[in-house]
Amino acid sequence: MRIALAQINSKLGDFTGNSEKILSYTVRAKEKHADLVVFPEAALFGYHPVDLLERPSVVKAQEETLVKLHKSIPKEIGVLVGAIVRNPSREGKRYWNAAVFLEKGKKPKVFAKQLLPTYDVFDESRHIEPGKVADNIFRFKKKRILVTICEDIWAWPLSKNPWYARYGSNPLKKIKSKDVDLVVNLSASPFTEMKFDNRRLVTRATVAHFKTPMVYVNMVGGQDELIFDGGSFALNKRGEVQAQSVRFSEDLNLYDLKAEVGGMREPVREPLECVRQSLVLGLRDFVDKSGFEKVHLGLSGGIDSALVACLATDALGPSKVKALYLPGPFSSKESQKWSAKLAENLGIELFEISIMDSYKKTLSEFEKTFGAKEFSVTNENLQARLRGLFLMAYSNQNRSMLLGTSNKSELAVGYSTLYGDMIGGLMPIGDLLKTQVFDLSRHYNKEAEVIPVEIIERPPSAELRADQLDQDSLPPYDQLDKTIQKLVLGFQPAKTPSEKEILNLMIKSEFKRWQSPPILKVSDHAFGRGRRFPVAHSSFY
Amino acid sequence: MRIALAQINSKLGDFTGNSEKILSYTVRAKEKHADLVVFPEAALFGYHPVDLLERPSVVKAQEETLVKLHKSIPKEIGVLVGAIVRNPSREGKRYWNAAVFLEKGKKPKVFAKQLLPTYDVFDESRHIEPGKVADNIFRFKKKRILVTICEDIWAWPLSKNPWYARYGSNPLKKIKSKDVDLVVNLSASPFTEMKFDNRRLVTRATVAHFKTPMVYVNMVGGQDELIFDGGSFALNKRGEVQAQSVRFSEDLNLYDLKAEVGGMREPVREPLECVRQSLVLGLRDFVDKSGFEKVHLGLSGGIDSALVACLATDALGPSKVKALYLPGPFSSKESQKWSAKLAENLGIELFEISIMDSYKKTLSEFEKTFGAKEFSVTNENLQARLRGLFLMAYSNQNRSMLLGTSNKSELAVGYSTLYGDMIGGLMPIGDLLKTQVFDLSRHYNKEAEVIPVEIIERPPSAELRADQLDQDSLPPYDQLDKTIQKLVLGFQPAKTPSEKEILNLMIKSEFKRWQSPPILKVSDHAFGRGRRFPVAHSSFY
Repeated sequence: MRIALAQINSKLGDFTGNSEKILSYTVRAKEKHADLVVFPEAALFGYHPVDLLERPSVVKAQEETLVKLHKSIPKEIGVLVGAIVRNPSREGKRYWNAAVFLEKGKKPKVFAKQLLPTYDVFDESRHIEPGKVADNIFRFKKKRILVTICEDIWAWPLSKNPWYARYGSNPLKKIKSKDVDLVVNLSASPFTEMKFDNRRLVTRATVAHFKTPMVYVNMVGGQDELIFDGGSFALNKRGEVQAQSVRFSEDLNLYDLKAEVGGMREPVREPLECVRQSLVLGLRDFVDKSGFEKVHLGLSGGIDSALVACLATDALGPSKVKALYLPGPFSSKESQKWSAKLAENLGIELFEISIMDSYKKTLSEFEKTFGAKEFSVTNENLQARLRGLFLMAYSNQNRSMLLGTSNKSELAVGYSTLYGDMIGGLMPIGDLLKTQVFDLSRHYNKEAEVIPVEIIERPPSAELRADQLDQDSLPPYDQLDKTIQKLVLGFQPAKTPSEKEILNLMIKSEFKRWQSPPILKVSDHAFGRGRRFPVAHSSFY
Repeated sequence: MRIALAQINSKLGDFTGNSEKILSYTVRAKEKHADLVVFPEAALFGYHPVDLLERPSVVKAQEETLVKLHKSIPKEIGVLVGAIVRNPSREGKRYWNAAVFLEKGKKPKVFAKQLLPTYDVFDESRHIEPGKVADNIFRFKKKRILVTICEDIWAWPLSKNPWYARYGSNPLKKIKSKDVDLVVNLSASPFTEMKFDNRRLVTRATVAHFKTPMVYVNMVGGQDELIFDGGSFALNKRGEVQAQSVRFSEDLNLYDLKAEVGGMREPVREPLECVRQSLVLGLRDFVDKSGFEKVHLGLSGGIDSALVACLATDALGPSKVKALYLPGPFSSKESQKWSAKLAENLGIELFEISIMDSYKKTLSEFEKTFGAKEFSVTNENLQARLRGLFLMAYSNQNRSMLLGTSNKSELAVGYSTLYGDMIGGLMPIGDLLKTQVFDLSRHYNKEAEVIPVEIIERPPSAELRADQLDQDSLPPYDQLDKTIQKLVLGFQPAKTPSEKEILNLMIKSEFKRWQSPPILKVSDHAFGRGRRFPVAHSSFY
């Protein structure tokens, strides 16, 4: 049997577009003499549907598209495609997250996901009822194929991650090895640094249990905060990789079960390059799938905005990226110079609007009513918010999406101005710690000095008051980042006075993160919808 | 047996404070000769814990407090208190949402919630493992008491609500009537208009099944978006209310099981008054539990800001509420006059800052770089954002929380400026449709003309361009609100061209709501964390 791994980029809710793509990949798979073509989880619906599933009319539209798709597929090829279908029982949640097996002229077979991720960004238990994996074996071309969907293979006790492996039992253990000839997994598994290796671990554990080959097909593309990295593959029954698809773009790959051969592309593995390609893909898809064509950002002369400019240029090309330099009373001459140099290096247009007079004017209007006060955070935030004002005016004027430039370290401790530098349609580097921002910037510069080296080497400053340095308000970034990792990703208690102070800053700034734009997620635990903390509370533990 | 219904206002994560309150209510209950005192769900932890449960140190601190509380309680009274405890099994999610029964010198008994709400604002399946209600019967004073926690009694098929009653089975049906003498329910059930009656329905169904009396103890107080309205009560085995606690404030009430008598307070029932008291409680607790002491808001001369000013004054008293009037180039003279009158009626201080010159200055700076364009949404948003700039400067200067004034109708269709009028620490009326804003404003004026009648009667206008009226951009509010109810609360498809246009506006403005401040929830489906829609998608169905 020849199996096609159809690693596609679905658009959430675009049933017609997704269906056309599924059909076109099916036709191509048949041309390549595939007997079976496997698509990712929820390939027809797009992932993740979240509360789109609240409205029955949305699922109905997808189901109607599925019926049409079934009629359109060519003869003599089996199609296994992820879709949302109605739970046939009147009890329990309304839907199944299903894999549907289609053959021309035959009744569709439906297989329901059993393990429903309900942690971090995942909310499947809200609308999805679990099926039984034991029901998910079907016979095709004399093979008994076990269909699993993403999380179904993640209950092996492999990881110390506090979310994973917290299931009451592993449904796969209830199925006997002798009843299965091939395992297939349809996934929509988002990128994080550890995911590539972890996928190998869980698929190999599955293969070891069933003593069969396995085909793993993953979604690719960005959807709001999530970036699906693809990297589909096939293992033989000894757990050896015999087909490997690319990461970060669509791919149609073949695996011949009998011959034990498949397409072997080189998947990106270098950690910084993985992060770069993830963010570029996530940024491009977010802009595109939101219906925008261009973006802009404020260049400050600092490293965060420089990196966002690089990523945006990679994602959309220089003509679709505009930069604004907005000097204020505390901006250094160098900031202007290096911003201009960066824009020149990237080939993006740079505009300049001074906030100097606007700052004087608004401050004096404020002082007219409330009296002059000593320079304080009020003055700092006023500058940041005036920049926001102009950046959003540009957005309104040009129907261009503003990109935010906050990083995870700033967001963690609230070292950012709400409605000032925290604004935008998307935060491309909001899940990168400051130390990672440095690493990725240096990675960019390996090829050539894209980011002027002075931007990388100068001590970080918000330039909102005289002689200001981040280091005056915050611990050194390497120390801060370690603590953030410990508290956010490690879930550990704050022990030292410095850690307790950072925890305190984190808790006190929760109200800012509540109002943050979507953040592209590349770590195992990003700020955003996957981390739901209260604002009004006293849990300083 | 005499049972005390201890309807307390817990603070999330304030284990010491909550424990002291639990102890003090227990002592008072004993003084009133109660044999058993019942507290709400998660009374010790505070509800809802969401991802505070990610960090084991937080739960550990609560468990240590529970041990201390147990040692402190007086003799000869049983205490049934809601707490988060570790799941004793190594499999499944880490915690139980439990009721713990404490008696001086005896081993605690632990009862775990079985039905875990995972819909709307509720995320219990993220961290909580279900227990078995059948294990939750214990013997006390010769009575066999069945302990249930909130959702455990909500699986009766009573409601057409698409979330409720979507459980695979009703755990209570598995318990035989003859094994139970009394049912107790510990709840943290948030206010919505239908909740009072629905609680009666589900408790009466429970009583009818077991043919026993029942005691229902609900949390009171605000927690971020949620407002718990209390209203605890006891039913005899015929389903008659024999004890009734107040709503919207703390209460200690007694029910004598044998004598079939208990305290009968009058619970607020009038719909508008319920909404008013909810919002006042939610606003006060949000400000207080966030560590703020005062608030301010922009008065526009419109009805939304007028209503928020009334609510804030009710919640905090006039000395803690400041108003800013920020006239711009299109503000009418009347707006100033009526804002001043309103402030005078409420006894709150009013400041004025004109945005006129700031608008001219910032616009001319923008045009210097990008050229002058025709008056557009850019100019409108610039005004709204300048107001935001001053309102936030006031916040910085005075450590005062800004209240947002957006209503649900505006938020639904995106008729609001992101980073302009959409800003604030809290949106007190973000879950009220415009028609409800009118109704509640008229309700305020029944006693006396608090809100100048002109504010209520003038046609709504954003006053951001000449002769602008909401009605020029939007359908009439009664029609708009009906459609929003149909789409958001009714989950129905858009059928008419006007409904389709409104659905389109809703989908296109999702990016604004993603960045909205917390919204006090009073309807069955508010915007906010309970409604998780994607930004980048094409589900126009």
